[in-house]
Amino acid sequence: MATKAARKPSESKGPDAYAKEYADAIVIDCLEYSMWNRERFQELRAGGMGCVHVTLAVWENARETLTAIGEWLMLLAEHKDLVVHARSVADIHAAKKSNRTAIVFGFQNTSPLEDEINLFAVFHELGVRIIQLTYNIQNHIASGCWEKNDTGLSTVYGRDAVREMNRVGMLIDLSHCNERTCLDTIEHSLKPVALTHANPLTFVGSSVELSVRNKSDKVIKALTENGGVVGLSNYPRLAPDGENVTLQKFCEMVAWTVDLVGIEHVGIGTDIYIGREHRTTWFRTGRWSRASKVPLRPSVKFPDWLETPAQFPNLYAGLRNIGFNKSEAAAVMGGNWMRLFEQTFSPTA
Amino acid sequence: MATKAARKPSESKGPDAYAKEYADAIVIDCLEYSMWNRERFQELRAGGMGCVHVTLAVWENARETLTAIGEWLMLLAEHKDLVVHARSVADIHAAKKSNRTAIVFGFQNTSPLEDEINLFAVFHELGVRIIQLTYNIQNHIASGCWEKNDTGLSTVYGRDAVREMNRVGMLIDLSHCNERTCLDTIEHSLKPVALTHANPLTFVGSSVELSVRNKSDKVIKALTENGGVVGLSNYPRLAPDGENVTLQKFCEMVAWTVDLVGIEHVGIGTDIYIGREHRTTWFRTGRWSRASKVPLRPSVKFPDWLETPAQFPNLYAGLRNIGFNKSEAAAVMGGNWMRLFEQTFSPTA
Repeated sequence: MATKAARKPSESKGPDAYAKEYADAIVIDCLEYSMWNRERFQELRAGGMGCVHVTLAVWENARETLTAIGEWLMLLAEHKDLVVHARSVADIHAAKKSNRTAIVFGFQNTSPLEDEINLFAVFHELGVRIIQLTYNIQNHIASGCWEKNDTGLSTVYGRDAVREMNRVGMLIDLSHCNERTCLDTIEHSLKPVALTHANPLTFVGSSVELSVRNKSDKVIKALTENGGVVGLSNYPRLAPDGENVTLQKFCEMVAWTVDLVGIEHVGIGTDIYIGREHRTTWFRTGRWSRASKVPLRPSVKFPDWLETPAQFPNLYAGLRNIGFNKSEAAAVMGGNWMRLFEQTFSPTA
Repeated sequence: MATKAARKPSESKGPDAYAKEYADAIVIDCLEYSMWNRERFQELRAGGMGCVHVTLAVWENARETLTAIGEWLMLLAEHKDLVVHARSVADIHAAKKSNRTAIVFGFQNTSPLEDEINLFAVFHELGVRIIQLTYNIQNHIASGCWEKNDTGLSTVYGRDAVREMNRVGMLIDLSHCNERTCLDTIEHSLKPVALTHANPLTFVGSSVELSVRNKSDKVIKALTENGGVVGLSNYPRLAPDGENVTLQKFCEMVAWTVDLVGIEHVGIGTDIYIGREHRTTWFRTGRWSRASKVPLRPSVKFPDWLETPAQFPNLYAGLRNIGFNKSEAAAVMGGNWMRLFEQTFSPTA
């Protein structure tokens, strides 16, 4: 692990200076929720992205999710020169070799399962590899970060669901869960789990609009001690200094988190969602409410140094300039996700 | 092709006499619809079955079919010493090597698609490899063998569906379709198609109860000229002499059909459905009617020489005794299905 003391800030170079070593890295954004089309896929290629974890469902039920998967299969067929579906780390390596971006399917909620435990295996067959237990609120399995009650992983179906996800080979995501659900799940899961897109509450402070989404040191430490990875986000409602977050400040957050938990446990999950701004109400209220519990901000602007995945080379340069060496930067940019995917995407023997 | 003249009936030997050469063959039953459990899987192993095409849906919609697939994935996990899911011919060869029976998923209707063309690819991802266009009646795509109107493949969605099945790698089954649907589909499909379980009307005659299900020489010839395979059934309501069908008579039907279309185009599809007798009303009326259009016969008894797949060695002996040589018998018992699966189970490049 590179300690704070070991990092030596270099002079500030642009991304071009690192182009050669960037090309060696497998760069992963562990959460994007854009309205995907050729333009978006071209941005992935422009950014040299090795892999993106995309969201297929937030409140969608099983049937609606089949439609989403069907649409994705057509997108992948139509744009196979740019992107390819990945079910495994081997698929991501193969995508890199063929100069394409690997797409990992994920849900930000367990709604597609409709509380039918067999459907974890069914969606695994369909190539879904990451599922978040709940999206902000309480459901049958878990409790979300908007709840006021101190509820955690449900002790009946919730625990069974976690073990079933372990069994079939599904990475558990806790980004929108509450403190107790995170701690309960980390304890109950037989495999490492993830925060695909969340920031450390201590570093960011509670002034940002959705600070309830950020995670305590206790959660981040427990998760990473069990082998998990936390994906840091530049989404302005979660990021330090909000819309004014600079590349420098973001990289300081990376360094702060690395000092807390080690270089092996920090990754990136931006939460970029280009073209889905009109769906904000759906994200916030699903079909279960008429009023959002948080302010709707359809026009949130991501910082100009990382508005689209085409700009990931900026982030790499930022990490190198703040003093991470090549292998450390590569770990944060994607290597750590690759290790976690390897540990979690396959069924238990 | 072995002509009638070339076949020389040998003395009548029992299946034990052919045990060694039977073990070399990949034996396939291209339609069974039993209530699957360990006992049924043990019968498959007792019969040395290489592969069985099983039915997951007749009238079930998309959501219900996910449940059926989920149940199958659990069955496969629990009984992995006996059976294994097959998505390809390579998987069937691997199953044979590991002394297990390969299970090919199929639907006897397009109801799980709910007229959403993208779902062909989704179900292909889930390992479904054979879909029948309709089950007895008219639907959006095709017309069934119970209809009195001379309707065929629908010229709008029906034609698109056939080409989509060609594209994604789904074998089209016409067993319960009517004459015109069969002819239209054979003409429109870019790949060979199948009658997984139907008999030649000319040989059987019109006295059997469901003779409307059997196929004319015209259909059988057109289908096989395009590379397709017809799977012959000992289901008493379709078979020559009904419940009294003998092994000898069944093998004469095989020989008659081989003489009509060639040894490369005849296979077996029994339609055995042990344990589903209580579902007969569902098969006949789905949710669309209160009265079956054909007599309900929940207690139909399959002939005692092939009541369960454990008895497939009897059939092999019957074919050898009627004068088929080893390679001819192997073609009928499964080799022809293997060729057709190889041609149809993969997406079009």
